[in-house]
Amino acid sequence: MVKAKFDYTGIGVRDLDHSIKFYTEKLGMQLLGRYKIKETNGEIADLKSPDGDQKLELNWYANRGEYKNGDELDHLAFEVQDVDAALSELRSQGVEVAMEPFNAGNSRLAFVKDPDGIWIELEGPKKT
Amino acid sequence: MVKAKFDYTGIGVRDLDHSIKFYTEKLGMQLLGRYKIKETNGEIADLKSPDGDQKLELNWYANRGEYKNGDELDHLAFEVQDVDAALSELRSQGVEVAMEPFNAGNSRLAFVKDPDGIWIELEGPKKT
Repeated sequence: MVKAKFDYTGIGVRDLDHSIKFYTEKLGMQLLGRYKIKETNGEIADLKSPDGDQKLELNWYANRGEYKNGDELDHLAFEVQDVDAALSELRSQGVEVAMEPFNAGNSRLAFVKDPDGIWIELEGPKKT
Repeated sequence: MVKAKFDYTGIGVRDLDHSIKFYTEKLGMQLLGRYKIKETNGEIADLKSPDGDQKLELNWYANRGEYKNGDELDHLAFEVQDVDAALSELRSQGVEVAMEPFNAGNSRLAFVKDPDGIWIELEGPKKT
């Protein structure tokens, strides 16, 4: 069993400004940060409620095309100590791998799929 | 602005036992509880990682029929003090209401939609 911590929920959005406005102005969330993602030609925003630790990530992709049914849930993210070791363990247990490990900024990321095909991000410190 | 706390992410699953097994045995989450939901003829399970507070709810519906693209994200839940007051405030701000308030067990629930149509649950204490 992989030692992991559920860290945030990533949803896909049609319009990043509009969605940030909704979650901050209507539901009182705090904007933790907003980042351009070169690799996907997109932009993300991280939010949380003032009283909570649970994070919500809004994912916008310039190249998405039409926003389709199924784009609402982007991924669920779990923190692990060692992304490569965790992926290797999950793979050996028959879990489907969606994306092999790669460095992104100061993080290392990989993706597997849950039984319904939902992308599960494994996130850990960058491997040097 | 509504005072609310992001409480959990609810995903839709094809097979509750199979998904509980995945999230507990592969990703080390703890099963907090499993509940039959009479109103939907379904069953849900709540999980969290040992080191975290973030909850994941697995939603299974007997009457779903075929599991379709778009069923992966069920809803995002926010805790509020007073569901009726929060709904009224959001409605007056032009937020689309998906389901009017109702009591369920010891809770009171209502649903609105985010800008992409994602169902947002407002949850608070039961109104007597």
